[in-house]
Amino acid sequence: MDEFEKLLNQRAKIVDAALDFYLPRESDYPEKIHRAMRYSALAGGKRLRPVMVMESAKLFGLPFEKVLPTACGIEMIHTYSLIHDDLPVMDNDDYRRGKPTCHKVFGDAVALLAGDALLTHAFSVISKNSRIDGISPLAVIEVIERVACEAGSKGMVGGQTVDIETTGMSIDKETLLYIDRHKTGCLICASLWAGARLAEASKQDLNVINKYGEKIGLIFQIVDDILDIKGDEKLLGKPIGSDAKNKKNTFPSLLGFQESLEMLECLCKEAKGLISEFDGSDFFMNLVDYLKSRRY
Amino acid sequence: MDEFEKLLNQRAKIVDAALDFYLPRESDYPEKIHRAMRYSALAGGKRLRPVMVMESAKLFGLPFEKVLPTACGIEMIHTYSLIHDDLPVMDNDDYRRGKPTCHKVFGDAVALLAGDALLTHAFSVISKNSRIDGISPLAVIEVIERVACEAGSKGMVGGQTVDIETTGMSIDKETLLYIDRHKTGCLICASLWAGARLAEASKQDLNVINKYGEKIGLIFQIVDDILDIKGDEKLLGKPIGSDAKNKKNTFPSLLGFQESLEMLECLCKEAKGLISEFDGSDFFMNLVDYLKSRRY
Repeated sequence: MDEFEKLLNQRAKIVDAALDFYLPRESDYPEKIHRAMRYSALAGGKRLRPVMVMESAKLFGLPFEKVLPTACGIEMIHTYSLIHDDLPVMDNDDYRRGKPTCHKVFGDAVALLAGDALLTHAFSVISKNSRIDGISPLAVIEVIERVACEAGSKGMVGGQTVDIETTGMSIDKETLLYIDRHKTGCLICASLWAGARLAEASKQDLNVINKYGEKIGLIFQIVDDILDIKGDEKLLGKPIGSDAKNKKNTFPSLLGFQESLEMLECLCKEAKGLISEFDGSDFFMNLVDYLKSRRY
Repeated sequence: MDEFEKLLNQRAKIVDAALDFYLPRESDYPEKIHRAMRYSALAGGKRLRPVMVMESAKLFGLPFEKVLPTACGIEMIHTYSLIHDDLPVMDNDDYRRGKPTCHKVFGDAVALLAGDALLTHAFSVISKNSRIDGISPLAVIEVIERVACEAGSKGMVGGQTVDIETTGMSIDKETLLYIDRHKTGCLICASLWAGARLAEASKQDLNVINKYGEKIGLIFQIVDDILDIKGDEKLLGKPIGSDAKNKKNTFPSLLGFQESLEMLECLCKEAKGLISEFDGSDFFMNLVDYLKSRRY
């Protein structure tokens, strides 16, 4: 494991501890919903989104501990989207991060409600960021508005809608880009933006961070598509080939392997070009290489 | 129609217009999710929760127009809960407010996503209340935290969880009270609290308003249970007898008709006693009588 992965793991452990703190206890009534929420939210994962919130705050001079509520809230939104995405009415997936999916363990109704509860709780947790010394209430409100926008019907849920509606159909490159920019990209952009906004970054800097986020989102998704074909099931914690099985449109299926790799290369170069203008952007430079070469 | 119902209808029309404004357009891409969101959110209904937000603000000296974003956000949360509740994995209901339910028109997957999107959008809309002159950002953050809490796993979703888990089982009165206080009561309490908090009501007044909300929530639910047995299908816009069909525990099924009516009478007296201490509480006094004698 290289230095960057060690750093990522360290940060992920901090996120895990904060998530444990901000999630309701298993023993809180009704226990079943809280077990389901914690089962999915504490199932591991790279914690990329919350780490991006933290590192983005740090890039603009705010200690990353100060944005942990927002980081955790965004990870809860990500987790809810996975729970609902895995339901039988959506992708009907049985495994996630090496474990049976939420509805496989708790049943469809409780999984639906656990997703609803995580999404709702996320906004309660983000609002708690206003109680942390040095954070302005207006910044927290702007973060709530932006996160809700990027996670909603013109953001992540919009991407899921078009994904579901076009599964098994032949689509053009523009539609594929819409799906991936929204389904994956929007919450990644919101994460980077939120950390920078809480650190009171300038409008100009927020714009650059946003553009970097858009590139990172597509890089993440192209690699995801490739791993679903060429990845290692043990490392991924889920069966490969699920995109083909579910007749999903992906970059390799639409553009071919070679063009997908070329697009990936180009995006990495652009992302690095954008972020390199900031002092102390090592983390985000390394993140590009890490996302490009990740194996799970 | 009496004077109070006329007033309620006037207020409901203001809510309808504000909802129309704060919801995404049908023509916004992806159209299908926006059609589904608007189909359910603009299907009519009494708009009791948003009107409670507005009247509660007014009671404490704030013009009700100033809390319309919060009022609309809470109604969107109510609508999402109905969409998810009607899904086949939950209550599997075909009709709501006289129209086919969301999933009957748009399919299960889009209905699930439309619910998710409405819940998410609600927090974006509530956050916009901070842009209205005279509203403090801290009050808006506290409202977001409270609404998320009352709508979440220890509030509304908690009530739905226990409801689903105990359907068809024999439960005690305490469990029935838990279900109804949470499934219905919590969002009603949050509505009253939100209006008062945005109007900068004192802690003591917020407590009284909260206790009144708890009574109102139970009154609403007991009458709901009675209407499902003795109501008029045409007025209700849905078939009666669905509680019995779905083996739901209700006040009449658990306590009998007579004791349910006595409990209702007692709650109405207590609610009026609480709210009568405020000057200008006519609306909330009349609301008790209205909820007690409503036929739909």
